[in-house]
Amino acid sequence: METSLERIRKDIEALSHFNATPGCGVTRFSYSKEDRQARDYLLEQFKSLDLDVSIDGVGNIRARYLGKDSDAPIVMTGSHIDTVLNGGKFDGVAGVVGALEIVRVMHENDIRPTHSVEIVIFTEEEGSNFYSTMAGSKALTGKYGIDDLKKISNENGVSMFDVARQFGLTPENVEEHRIRPGEVKAMIELHVEQGAVLDDEKKTIGIVNAIAGMKTFVVTFTGKSNHAGTTPMYLRENPMSAAAQVISEVEDILQQVGTHSTVGTVGKIICVPNVPNVIPNKVAFTLDVRDVDPRGIRAAVAEFKKRVADKAAAHKVEVDISLIAQGQAIQLAGTVVGTIETAAQELGLTYKKMNSGAVHDSAMMAELTDVGMIFVPSVAGRSHVPEENTPFEDIKAGCDLLLKTVLRLAR
Amino acid sequence: METSLERIRKDIEALSHFNATPGCGVTRFSYSKEDRQARDYLLEQFKSLDLDVSIDGVGNIRARYLGKDSDAPIVMTGSHIDTVLNGGKFDGVAGVVGALEIVRVMHENDIRPTHSVEIVIFTEEEGSNFYSTMAGSKALTGKYGIDDLKKISNENGVSMFDVARQFGLTPENVEEHRIRPGEVKAMIELHVEQGAVLDDEKKTIGIVNAIAGMKTFVVTFTGKSNHAGTTPMYLRENPMSAAAQVISEVEDILQQVGTHSTVGTVGKIICVPNVPNVIPNKVAFTLDVRDVDPRGIRAAVAEFKKRVADKAAAHKVEVDISLIAQGQAIQLAGTVVGTIETAAQELGLTYKKMNSGAVHDSAMMAELTDVGMIFVPSVAGRSHVPEENTPFEDIKAGCDLLLKTVLRLAR
Repeated sequence: METSLERIRKDIEALSHFNATPGCGVTRFSYSKEDRQARDYLLEQFKSLDLDVSIDGVGNIRARYLGKDSDAPIVMTGSHIDTVLNGGKFDGVAGVVGALEIVRVMHENDIRPTHSVEIVIFTEEEGSNFYSTMAGSKALTGKYGIDDLKKISNENGVSMFDVARQFGLTPENVEEHRIRPGEVKAMIELHVEQGAVLDDEKKTIGIVNAIAGMKTFVVTFTGKSNHAGTTPMYLRENPMSAAAQVISEVEDILQQVGTHSTVGTVGKIICVPNVPNVIPNKVAFTLDVRDVDPRGIRAAVAEFKKRVADKAAAHKVEVDISLIAQGQAIQLAGTVVGTIETAAQELGLTYKKMNSGAVHDSAMMAELTDVGMIFVPSVAGRSHVPEENTPFEDIKAGCDLLLKTVLRLAR
Repeated sequence: METSLERIRKDIEALSHFNATPGCGVTRFSYSKEDRQARDYLLEQFKSLDLDVSIDGVGNIRARYLGKDSDAPIVMTGSHIDTVLNGGKFDGVAGVVGALEIVRVMHENDIRPTHSVEIVIFTEEEGSNFYSTMAGSKALTGKYGIDDLKKISNENGVSMFDVARQFGLTPENVEEHRIRPGEVKAMIELHVEQGAVLDDEKKTIGIVNAIAGMKTFVVTFTGKSNHAGTTPMYLRENPMSAAAQVISEVEDILQQVGTHSTVGTVGKIICVPNVPNVIPNKVAFTLDVRDVDPRGIRAAVAEFKKRVADKAAAHKVEVDISLIAQGQAIQLAGTVVGTIETAAQELGLTYKKMNSGAVHDSAMMAELTDVGMIFVPSVAGRSHVPEENTPFEDIKAGCDLLLKTVLRLAR
């Protein structure tokens, strides 16, 4: 009994056509026309499998394949279908299609486990609309309430609460649909790695031990704008010089004080006024630090802050450091990790036990239930880009492993 | 016989009200409504002084106060009235108002020198519309022809040629109105320093010996975008790290290989996709290098290029360096510098012989005639910002010096 590569391919290709930017990767924001089309496609599949479908106030979809004991805690599996701007067709979708496919296999083989198996599709994982990642799973797991949904807003200033209503949902009921403690026996998410480790080491499967914690800061240096030609070097108060020195030392900081798993990234920089012949008066940049080991984050951030202060003084500029996002490192459930590993061995798959540098919806579930994650390789580690790719054979291997794992947990 | 502080103040204040961004500095782009209003104000003044006014195909205004010998080469003085976005009220305007004021003084005292004295207002010095600085003086001095005016265009893709036509000018005639060799005896421009040297040394006047040459480069590092959490440091091809290292070494490069007058500025940086949790795939920045001594530019650029290549290799990223602007260093005319200095001594003004880090319209005139420049202090060196300031007493001192110098050259 195995999953079907052809059906997996067909589902992924079909979903990739619900896309606001054909020719420039896949763009499917939550609550968009494309999101509606993708939801309709999936709901149609769920209907053909006779699943019990419920949709909460922000659009999280749950589709239940009933087990023999309808009162027993459910085994949940799924992921998300929203994307970043110009993203790829596998991120999120692999886990949703995988969940659909394993339920199809159970259905066609008339397998009825003790525990119900539920496909879950989380809304707005990427934060593309409201700049708040995993807003859907946060709502479903009680981390976001109505007040939070009214606070976060899109670039037009419209709140997630209002956008969800405009999409035909009833966000005022979102708190009633939260997952209750004891409701879920285990949550398994299949996802593309989004990193190059599996591809680099030629492994088909990653079994996730822990999800990295993270802290994101904005550092803003403020100096004095002046003419680039008329201001001698000794009279400058140049925030660009201070910023460049700090950014250029990030790798050194990680090597000096981080653990072997600490990573740090400056992904965004803003320069004001950003004109070639004007010394900037403001340079602001983000630093994203992650590690499965909280000590790595703690040490790197402390050293980083020290150097920021040093550079500000050396360049006679003001500085502000603000924490804009954070998440705690999460150890996944040892029992589930063990179940996945045994199943991988039985299937003869090459695998690596590894950490996830990215946060996923499953991490939101970790306080409520036992969580496991299965990674499949991302070619060259590319993700959130049009070139994002995972061979369908690897996705099928991940689906077969998901099937075996879920059947064992739900039996 | 001296200039009038009250009239100077009144003119500068009046011009500052022709402004697209009240409350946020002065914004007066060439060919805008505000430019039209400022031109009308000045043309009204010229009319009351019975000046012969001519306007060329791109809007350069020349207003002649006739000398006794109408065939003798003219003495020219003036500057520009266009500004950068959210600039100050003195840059350019000081030299135009100064030129107007000295002609007023000649007119009210019925002084008629041998040589005609001509006020000149150059169009589009700042390059705010077409990203090409000194486009007006380049046209007037033959450096730009019709083809060039058709090539440079604004952010809507409309050429300077077409915008000038829409403004009611006849750019097709621009080449006929070029200044001919022998037509101008000398050009003197009064301008705010735009740097902090005079303010720092408490001098009222700067007498410019030379205008710095400059080269501006765009350096583009291209690597691979990837997820900030899932990509180990050793698998990254990160253009931000390479860029930050180069930028952080600019000051060191100047100290190691520059002259005492070399300056270097990174004023603009672009990061793609510029998202906190994505390793950038492209970081591009400008480097503006200036020096009155060409050896300083040459040595700094060579060392800069070497380090750019080193950092690209170290971070496994591609790199491209493009020269986007350049100007040669210009020595101003020794005879004119001497005339200004003698006049400054006679007026009992504190002065400093200095270099100009910024290029000015006068530099465009240097191939056609003898050029001199008079600087007045910029408070704290601030320029191209709303806070730009020069005490009116200092502007009046500059105008008195301009008057004495022009009368001596035109007598």
